[in-house]
Amino acid sequence: MKVSVIGATGYAGAELLRLLHNHPEAEVMYMTSESHTGQPISAIYPHLRGIYDQKLISMKEMDKIAGASDVVFIGLPHGHAMAVGKVLEGKSVKIIDLGADYRFTDTKTYEEWYKVEHTHKDAKRVYGLAELYRKDIKTASIVGNAGCYTTASILALAPLVKYNLIYIDTIVIDAKSGVSGAGRSANLSNHFPEMYDNFKAYNVGGHRHTPEIEQTLSELAGEKIVLSFTPHLVPMSRGILSSCYAKLKPDVTAEQVDAAYEEMYQNEFFIRLLGRGGYPATKEVRGSNFCDIGWHIDARVGRVIALSAIDNLVKGAAGQAVQNFNIICGFDEKMGLLNVPVYP
Amino acid sequence: MKVSVIGATGYAGAELLRLLHNHPEAEVMYMTSESHTGQPISAIYPHLRGIYDQKLISMKEMDKIAGASDVVFIGLPHGHAMAVGKVLEGKSVKIIDLGADYRFTDTKTYEEWYKVEHTHKDAKRVYGLAELYRKDIKTASIVGNAGCYTTASILALAPLVKYNLIYIDTIVIDAKSGVSGAGRSANLSNHFPEMYDNFKAYNVGGHRHTPEIEQTLSELAGEKIVLSFTPHLVPMSRGILSSCYAKLKPDVTAEQVDAAYEEMYQNEFFIRLLGRGGYPATKEVRGSNFCDIGWHIDARVGRVIALSAIDNLVKGAAGQAVQNFNIICGFDEKMGLLNVPVYP
Amino acid sequence: MKVSVIGATGYAGAELLRLLHNHPEAEVMYMTSESHTGQPISAIYPHLRGIYDQKLISMKEMDKIAGASDVVFIGLPHGHAMAVGKVLEGKSVKIIDLGADYRFTDTKTYEEWYKVEHTHKDAKRVYGLAELYRKDIKTASIVGNAGCYTTASILALAPLVKYNLIYIDTIVIDAKSGVSGAGRSANLSNHFPEMYDNFKAYNVGGHRHTPEIEQTLSELAGEKIVLSFTPHLVPMSRGILSSCYAKLKPDVTAEQVDAAYEEMYQNEFFIRLLGRGGYPATKEVRGSNFCDIGWHIDARVGRVIALSAIDNLVKGAAGQAVQNFNIICGFDEKMGLLNVPVYP
Amino acid sequence: MKVSVIGATGYAGAELLRLLHNHPEAEVMYMTSESHTGQPISAIYPHLRGIYDQKLISMKEMDKIAGASDVVFIGLPHGHAMAVGKVLEGKSVKIIDLGADYRFTDTKTYEEWYKVEHTHKDAKRVYGLAELYRKDIKTASIVGNAGCYTTASILALAPLVKYNLIYIDTIVIDAKSGVSGAGRSANLSNHFPEMYDNFKAYNVGGHRHTPEIEQTLSELAGEKIVLSFTPHLVPMSRGILSSCYAKLKPDVTAEQVDAAYEEMYQNEFFIRLLGRGGYPATKEVRGSNFCDIGWHIDARVGRVIALSAIDNLVKGAAGQAVQNFNIICGFDEKMGLLNVPVYP
Repeated sequence: MKVSVIGATGYAGAELLRLLHNHPEAEVMYMTSESHTGQPISAIYPHLRGIYDQKLISMKEMDKIAGASDVVFIGLPHGHAMAVGKVLEGKSVKIIDLGADYRFTDTKTYEEWYKVEHTHKDAKRVYGLAELYRKDIKTASIVGNAGCYTTASILALAPLVKYNLIYIDTIVIDAKSGVSGAGRSANLSNHFPEMYDNFKAYNVGGHRHTPEIEQTLSELAGEKIVLSFTPHLVPMSRGILSSCYAKLKPDVTAEQVDAAYEEMYQNEFFIRLLGRGGYPATKEVRGSNFCDIGWHIDARVGRVIALSAIDNLVKGAAGQAVQNFNIICGFDEKMGLLNVPVYP
Repeated sequence: MKVSVIGATGYAGAELLRLLHNHPEAEVMYMTSESHTGQPISAIYPHLRGIYDQKLISMKEMDKIAGASDVVFIGLPHGHAMAVGKVLEGKSVKIIDLGADYRFTDTKTYEEWYKVEHTHKDAKRVYGLAELYRKDIKTASIVGNAGCYTTASILALAPLVKYNLIYIDTIVIDAKSGVSGAGRSANLSNHFPEMYDNFKAYNVGGHRHTPEIEQTLSELAGEKIVLSFTPHLVPMSRGILSSCYAKLKPDVTAEQVDAAYEEMYQNEFFIRLLGRGGYPATKEVRGSNFCDIGWHIDARVGRVIALSAIDNLVKGAAGQAVQNFNIICGFDEKMGLLNVPVYP
Repeated sequence: MKVSVIGATGYAGAELLRLLHNHPEAEVMYMTSESHTGQPISAIYPHLRGIYDQKLISMKEMDKIAGASDVVFIGLPHGHAMAVGKVLEGKSVKIIDLGADYRFTDTKTYEEWYKVEHTHKDAKRVYGLAELYRKDIKTASIVGNAGCYTTASILALAPLVKYNLIYIDTIVIDAKSGVSGAGRSANLSNHFPEMYDNFKAYNVGGHRHTPEIEQTLSELAGEKIVLSFTPHLVPMSRGILSSCYAKLKPDVTAEQVDAAYEEMYQNEFFIRLLGRGGYPATKEVRGSNFCDIGWHIDARVGRVIALSAIDNLVKGAAGQAVQNFNIICGFDEKMGLLNVPVYP
Repeated sequence: MKVSVIGATGYAGAELLRLLHNHPEAEVMYMTSESHTGQPISAIYPHLRGIYDQKLISMKEMDKIAGASDVVFIGLPHGHAMAVGKVLEGKSVKIIDLGADYRFTDTKTYEEWYKVEHTHKDAKRVYGLAELYRKDIKTASIVGNAGCYTTASILALAPLVKYNLIYIDTIVIDAKSGVSGAGRSANLSNHFPEMYDNFKAYNVGGHRHTPEIEQTLSELAGEKIVLSFTPHLVPMSRGILSSCYAKLKPDVTAEQVDAAYEEMYQNEFFIRLLGRGGYPATKEVRGSNFCDIGWHIDARVGRVIALSAIDNLVKGAAGQAVQNFNIICGFDEKMGLLNVPVYP
């Protein structure tokens, strides 16, 4: 399959190039950047020297790109993928957007949280979280690839919600991410000496992954869920750990909780269940597409605590995109994604 | 005042020596270690070369120590301070214990969580969190210095509980600590390559600081509180950030929340209120005795989120001990504790 | 090809398992550990869950291992591979030893630096640095895989020595390694809080990679070289940067230096020349088998400074071993080694 | 003494404020910033909240500043202190410049390396490295505070040069610094995800601290020294380790080397000699004004290797400035500088 990457110079774009390089059925035709047009990608990312030395072109050459590509991955900031989507509409090019533009069923929610008008409301699109929407993705022409915090949080909570084990108005998600999640633009806040040996929260109550988590969990629950979501920055490059709390319904047993996870995920290759009492660690998934999940019952307070770990740039972005790509193309879902975590 | 440090070779003990060195009214007479008896402390902690070159003695020489000291700091693992306390009983030596042995009003709680028999149940002791128990500490002869996670969590939640602003059965504390909190004993889990670039939770529902937090908050509330407490390890040496969630009672306004923090802490030098919307960061308190607190109202979900940051070895251990020492001795509470945070 | 890993629970062994998993022509038959016999490897390294769940056996079952394997990789501490080598002698099993036992032409040098008697002196062995000894490796039955500091340092200096451009008695190598190079045994020195945010040298003038570097460079020079080698620990998990200094011979031009590097390495896939003025960075090779090299002429002082970066566990250990494996088996040298560096 | 800080918002300026806060004889009158005029310093550096809440003024108000200050510290980028120096000339205000403008005896050298015209050539100035120029500093009105790499490197090599123990044309300095040394301006190179878990060299043969090191060592040697100096960035905030190599002259014994260090530094409080075989570590001096030095004789190659560690922001900048301030004012040199290293 011929693929192109629109917006290749962000961290997610570069990670996608890493994964596509070892994908046996993907050939990268074009990669674009508006700020570095004409430069080889390896001038922007020296670690790609000798691997990709293609020149970046402008996305203004969309006709050329569309003509040469079966699938286009979009790694642009939110608000910019819709224009690409509209241009490619009707063409035989499938789109996997790593940003937020195509993630919401209700574009009003998107507009409220992202403060941007949605200009492609009638697009036929599918939410790109394979473990939950695999069937829909198969036939989609536009996939709104799930976000990073979102993926970790939804996967941790889904069995509890789906099997009706918790009070849905008691959900608290306390999530922690490596700094690559904040992107590649240099700023004081993520200047090395400021962030090294430092830990802090940000965007309490206002992070844009909140409505995305709520959307999917609400669908699973069959009723509207609102929840607390708090992101934090960990002084490391990659990795997300999501700690999710909820009150258990009366008489729910630990065994029922175990069964919910088993039933939902037992055949999912990329979800590794560490069981009740298990502790996922970000390093144990680094560089891989795995989502590790452990859960705990604190009977003393009547809560379940679910913990999940992913690599934010893989299962939280580029790996998930390749997984969706495999589904769309009818390939084995694991193709090109058998990277063993890089440990230690 | 003449002081000695029993158990000087743990991180808290060494930090205490750092602070005492610049305390104008403290003179360190003896420091003990059972495993390094006879060696100079600077052989164990080379950063103390040229500052402290005293030799470590055994705590078996307690008579000598007691005779020469007005105050004894204890930095032993839990379960070992009680013996010291009993020996010194009746002598004119005050005790500040940095461990857990003297923290609990109800020694049964101690025995349940620490799996150790309490052998000094009738000791007159005071909980060593100055901002809440200053008056009692003044006249105490044994102070059970508050724990690290405990200090951060209690100080963040106290105004909400004291002024009756939250439903106390909805409290969730998600806390994160630098690795020095786990002590100086080398083990695989904290071996550098394992912990670097890694993030994980541990002891969900079972951490021993839980009952300590519950004890103090219950006293403030006037009714028994049980809560969720989850500790995590951050790949850094020092610092704790505590993220505390609770449902607000109906009709509680943001201004009432603000007022609670102001009223409770406005005259507390070591508590820096960052206000509603503020984000404490561990680096901004590193090396200092400050506890920075910010709070957030998430009206959408009806929760308040309080965030606090401390240096676990200072306000969470040695600094708090010196603060208690100052109170006991009638000194200015800030004496020897004016260290500016070491930033960046 | 059927392979086994003797001593699979060190970092190099685990990394080898990571690489072998994606090698299309290798099947892992057995993996051994004396301290964890009977346990699944994923109990020791949870990141391998779902990938390798084989049980570790004892190396005492060598007959079984030998019978089932075409190639055996050895990841034991130095001094222990010789016994394996002797047992397998005469059998049709090839050996790639990641330790030091088979690295030295002159076993006396080994005995002097390693303080261990060499018990397999007559073994036919080849030094396992593919870029220099490819031809010999092809037909070898025992390969002494080059060390980590060694690989980085030799590759940086080889062109200067081979083309006779420097005074060989002026070589100074100042090398820096991530902490995984020190192995997985927990000790105070590499306890997280001690090593985090810390930098130091160790083993000045006495590191065992010194004679290994000298051996190869002497062969290239055609005369005995002794040099200064100083290792340092960097507070990170992986990666080596080697900074190599030497006085240029009179009238040697910058262009001659450039030509030496080009000529020697232009067809080497795993060596990426960053050119004169180039700055390799450990992160740009992380997780990959690349060795990045840049060089600088400081005319003011008449010295050349060559800089090289590798991932100590890949090109400095497991990746190199797979590269040697490919050569021995007649496969494409890059097979299974096309990992793109994991960045950022 | 009344002091002001011109250019207070760089890392060195902020560190100076940290140290001055605990200096019993210094009162900070004004602090300036051109980009943040009118804001409180604690808005720029939140860690200073509750400690310094003074507003930053513009250095255009120099008359007011000069009138109120006995000593002015300058923390401006190079090229900007000279203007301040000229304005203050003839006034009874002493200057301690933390930048490079007043470090060079020969302003031509300054102009060559800094590519800036020197506009205050006739200024009476003294090089601000107390251990070597104490006597001159005492009566100076302008002190050019020694640089960070410079301080570590000169102090490590001075005894070897002064006592004529090495061949001065064989000196190689391989230095490593935490990232705070690169300043507070955010850029891609020091963006957290790029620099974390990364190690690299920069400015080989061209770093501006080179001529500064050469100037002082040449004065000690009584003849012109040129040497190799290579800086590297370590993924940590603070700290410099300098590894210095040189060929020993024939018949120089290890004892003579030991004696040189002892003789030169035995009465220096801030220099801690770890002896022959000693290994300084950056963490053991963090936050303090100490310079730890160890040295090694590698008889096999005839070289001495001297290692030194400092905190680049303290002994390499602000601490050194306070030390010079104490000398100028006739105070005890240690006043306000008794900070114990912050460990771990």
